[in-house]
Amino acid sequence: MMRDESRIRVRYKDTDQMGIVYYANYLVWFEIGRTELMRRLGMPYREFEKNNLYLPVIRVSCDYKVPARYDDEIALLTWIESLQEVRVVFGYEVRREEELLARGSTEHAFVNSTGRPVVLRKHSPFLWGRLCKAMDEAHGDKK
Amino acid sequence: MMRDESRIRVRYKDTDQMGIVYYANYLVWFEIGRTELMRRLGMPYREFEKNNLYLPVIRVSCDYKVPARYDDEIALLTWIESLQEVRVVFGYEVRREEELLARGSTEHAFVNSTGRPVVLRKHSPFLWGRLCKAMDEAHGDKK
Amino acid sequence: MMRDESRIRVRYKDTDQMGIVYYANYLVWFEIGRTELMRRLGMPYREFEKNNLYLPVIRVSCDYKVPARYDDEIALLTWIESLQEVRVVFGYEVRREEELLARGSTEHAFVNSTGRPVVLRKHSPFLWGRLCKAMDEAHGDKK
Amino acid sequence: MMRDESRIRVRYKDTDQMGIVYYANYLVWFEIGRTELMRRLGMPYREFEKNNLYLPVIRVSCDYKVPARYDDEIALLTWIESLQEVRVVFGYEVRREEELLARGSTEHAFVNSTGRPVVLRKHSPFLWGRLCKAMDEAHGDKK
Repeated sequence: MMRDESRIRVRYKDTDQMGIVYYANYLVWFEIGRTELMRRLGMPYREFEKNNLYLPVIRVSCDYKVPARYDDEIALLTWIESLQEVRVVFGYEVRREEELLARGSTEHAFVNSTGRPVVLRKHSPFLWGRLCKAMDEAHGDKK
Repeated sequence: MMRDESRIRVRYKDTDQMGIVYYANYLVWFEIGRTELMRRLGMPYREFEKNNLYLPVIRVSCDYKVPARYDDEIALLTWIESLQEVRVVFGYEVRREEELLARGSTEHAFVNSTGRPVVLRKHSPFLWGRLCKAMDEAHGDKK
Repeated sequence: MMRDESRIRVRYKDTDQMGIVYYANYLVWFEIGRTELMRRLGMPYREFEKNNLYLPVIRVSCDYKVPARYDDEIALLTWIESLQEVRVVFGYEVRREEELLARGSTEHAFVNSTGRPVVLRKHSPFLWGRLCKAMDEAHGDKK
Repeated sequence: MMRDESRIRVRYKDTDQMGIVYYANYLVWFEIGRTELMRRLGMPYREFEKNNLYLPVIRVSCDYKVPARYDDEIALLTWIESLQEVRVVFGYEVRREEELLARGSTEHAFVNSTGRPVVLRKHSPFLWGRLCKAMDEAHGDKK
């Protein structure tokens, strides 16, 4: 694994009257990135919710460098930045060919359907193991 | 009652690179219109779902006459166009001052949380009565 | 050509608290369908706007049969339903494997950047020819 | 002035299948907040663009404390956190009655229609003065 890459085509709907992608839409792309990352780790997010595990976002940040535009083909890189017992941070980079357009991160809590924190290592050792491994590979990849 | 009026300010997010409101956003406005209509009828939609009654959309149509633009203050008129035992049709007009921008309708089924049709008159006689009355007033209003 | 097929993965963002795709999002998918159709006809929509040709939507309708859900892989079929000198109608079907989820259409005017109607056959004979051919094939395909 | 308050009703469209407001929608609310703030300062954002001044977002962050839900009536507080010659930071708080739901900020560059940086104090002394005053009041308000 390491950094997972998703390809996204910018929709007309994503643009605003400045002729660029509206800033909130990058967060929708981040959702696509982490969904695809988890699918390729063998853990589709739809399975999470069936197992009473939810990952609400508790923090987001994004730096916008160069605007994406209509019909651009975007490469979204996603990786696991850090992992703790009750939360995980995903990192993201949005690129158009070699150009960096934006960089961001989202932090998520592990909770059950009533919103109570869940210790992932106990609740789902398999998932915990896969995330640990993915994180190690992501960080190894940077060296 | 008759025709219910909601005021909506066009957001930057609603625009696209043509400099006008993206066409799907009118459907979001329609949702605001019927939500406000039902609230003023004394039946907030959030109460519906607590009573195991859902109104999924089964048909929508919209005619776009003149585009809405950023920061416009829009008047949305909403009324009950027709009512049957298991479905309801809402009508909508989007206006900017006296100018008609768009006209549309949405048709909804009455179903329970498992998606089964619900005969509204039996399931909720109070709500049925209010809708009948609102429809009569809407149509009387046109004469 | 005939009916063009696009593949779309349902995003978490597309769902609402009923657990199904929010109805306005089908119109965003329709935009993807016609964009992809035109790209495969050799006429990317971004080129249209560079040639001072715009296709604002003047009418939309959609029938919703079965709800799409999170993470579904959707097949969207798009074709040219009808074509006139100053307008075009696209038809759409949303499918999940063999199941029909929704069917809709959008009607568009041909206008220039100031909103004036454009007679496509004169403004862009090449594009007009491609659209005519695509429409004929779409209709031949139904027989 | 000080902290400007906008009232926002949560739309069905804003929810996701977790039954809470999708995280990217808070950024749309932030846009409403800064738009309303600038309108009340006597500088509607639509006037900015007519004067060849744009405020693209270059950074955003948001902390999510408690989820907003369908039909909630939200109070959004907006203020000017900091101001420099070529950029401005807005601060935001999302509240439901007395409860803090989220807190965030957006940083914007001052640029012209070609994306070139603009020194606001020179480009628009009136606007610069109003923003300075609003920032001072916002900070005085905290004491």
